Amino acid sequence: MNGIVYERVALIGLGLIASSMFWAIRRAGLATEVTGYARTHETRDTARRIGLCDRVCDDIADAVRDADLVVLAAPVGAMGEIARQIAPHLKPGATVTDVGSVKRAVIDAVAPHLPDNVHFVPGHPLAGTEHSGPESGFAELFDDRWCLIVPVDGSDETAIARLRDLWLGIGAHVEIMEPDHHDLVLAVTSHAPHLIAYTMVGVADDLRRVTDSEVIKYSAAGFRDFTRIAASDPTMWRDVFLNNKDATLEILGRFTEELFALQRAIRTGDGDHLYDYFTRTRAIRRGIIEAGQDTDAPDFGRKKKPK
Amino acid sequence: MNGIVYERVALIGLGLIASSMFWAIRRAGLATEVTGYARTHETRDTARRIGLCDRVCDDIADAVRDADLVVLAAPVGAMGEIARQIAPHLKPGATVTDVGSVKRAVIDAVAPHLPDNVHFVPGHPLAGTEHSGPESGFAELFDDRWCLIVPVDGSDETAIARLRDLWLGIGAHVEIMEPDHHDLVLAVTSHAPHLIAYTMVGVADDLRRVTDSEVIKYSAAGFRDFTRIAASDPTMWRDVFLNNKDATLEILGRFTEELFALQRAIRTGDGDHLYDYFTRTRAIRRGIIEAGQDTDAPDFGRKKKPK
Repeated sequence: MNGIVYERVALIGLGLIASSMFWAIRRAGLATEVTGYARTHETRDTARRIGLCDRVCDDIADAVRDADLVVLAAPVGAMGEIARQIAPHLKPGATVTDVGSVKRAVIDAVAPHLPDNVHFVPGHPLAGTEHSGPESGFAELFDDRWCLIVPVDGSDETAIARLRDLWLGIGAHVEIMEPDHHDLVLAVTSHAPHLIAYTMVGVADDLRRVTDSEVIKYSAAGFRDFTRIAASDPTMWRDVFLNNKDATLEILGRFTEELFALQRAIRTGDGDHLYDYFTRTRAIRRGIIEAGQDTDAPDFGRKKKPK
Repeated sequence: MNGIVYERVALIGLGLIASSMFWAIRRAGLATEVTGYARTHETRDTARRIGLCDRVCDDIADAVRDADLVVLAAPVGAMGEIARQIAPHLKPGATVTDVGSVKRAVIDAVAPHLPDNVHFVPGHPLAGTEHSGPESGFAELFDDRWCLIVPVDGSDETAIARLRDLWLGIGAHVEIMEPDHHDLVLAVTSHAPHLIAYTMVGVADDLRRVTDSEVIKYSAAGFRDFTRIAASDPTMWRDVFLNNKDATLEILGRFTEELFALQRAIRTGDGDHLYDYFTRTRAIRRGIIEAGQDTDAPDFGRKKKPK
């Protein structure tokens, strides 16, 4: 599976995902040269200091020139403008992909800018931590995680297959998915849970002022897990919600409906309703462990850096 | 700190908490003999098979007879009836404590049954995993976690100090707290987050039927963390919500209010509101890490069993 998949890869945006991609591409020797570009001076300096990318460019045009694969790894809301900037400098026959958590809005924002002689094959690796920035990346982030490839109308089959090979080489499993379906599935598995976690942490933060930090001190009882989710990058998540509005609001509507039913069960003392509900949700956990997407072990299934 | 604190300890209910207490008591040599009782035959057989407790009793009266400390470690809703059963068999001068996640309701249910010559000192160790039953316990569960001791009117100072010594010997930090305040703090840090996680997993489970298991397959993106919380013991949690009704419903009311404000920000495209909110919640995470109740490391701060 290893071996050169693309001669030159350009990473646009050097946060958690792009930096992890770089280390994974290097680990498996999947490209001859990886260039990188980040919007801010600070990020580019950090990247150079830690050896992230073979070459960090101050000019986005230099980064994408001659690249066989260009990876858009910026917040979803910035992708359209980036596509507009790089379009004149793309190599004919190159593939442009992205790693955004929303697909329909990214396709609508990016596709119109790209020239006809370039392949656009959107993607979304389902992996992350609560950390962000160029120093947060590590080669194992995508190991045994899923990367969804979401082709647009007319995506070239050879270009799709090649991008698939890259992600397999990076360590991920790959699945092809349709854009709107992707956005609905992710609204359930990721976007709604994140908004809910952000909300609960916000409520607790209000209360913390009343309870003199006790919320933080005694967070181990469940709340702590929410704070980890709610510590993710604010810009990234703002853009996710603004760009997957309909599916997220639909799932939140269903969530509120269920929550009201459980609140009523608590208020009326309907223990059977609560017990049945909690038994059903326990079963779905077993499904996830059986599907290999988490372990029963106390390390929470998260990847460790090699010793 | 180690050394005998109580000659005889009786554990009533042999689930995750009691079994972890047994291993921790044995690890530090805090008692001469630990007896155990569980309601079902199966649990008692399992306890005997794995060497849990020095003596497992088929009769609850035998378990508490001559015990210097009796620990009620059953679901909150069962504690009143257990207190009624054991009351005639308690040794004069003994201390009765509990490990329930709710304190006011437990005090109201248990205290009236206990004779005057027994000390009642309620407690609540803030530790757990999503696993339950006698085989899920391990000695390190309480290491560096908090145990809240919640004395009732007239709790004897010597009895409180002794129970405190036990929990310190088990590896926990100890804080004294007032019952109603305990129930409010726990509603924020534990009860509301659990109900919300249960709700989200229930919504996803409904949708799973539509999306052909994709919710499970792609759970790594945030939802997975909810399923772990929502895999906790259904009986225990049913009883928690029924017995901390007011505080839980109050926090859920505030949660819904905030959630509606965020939904409106999504609907109206108010990115600044979202960004500011998500930045604030990120800060509380740092507070938790600084307070030593989680780590930045990818093991999620959960204890590992010794190699």
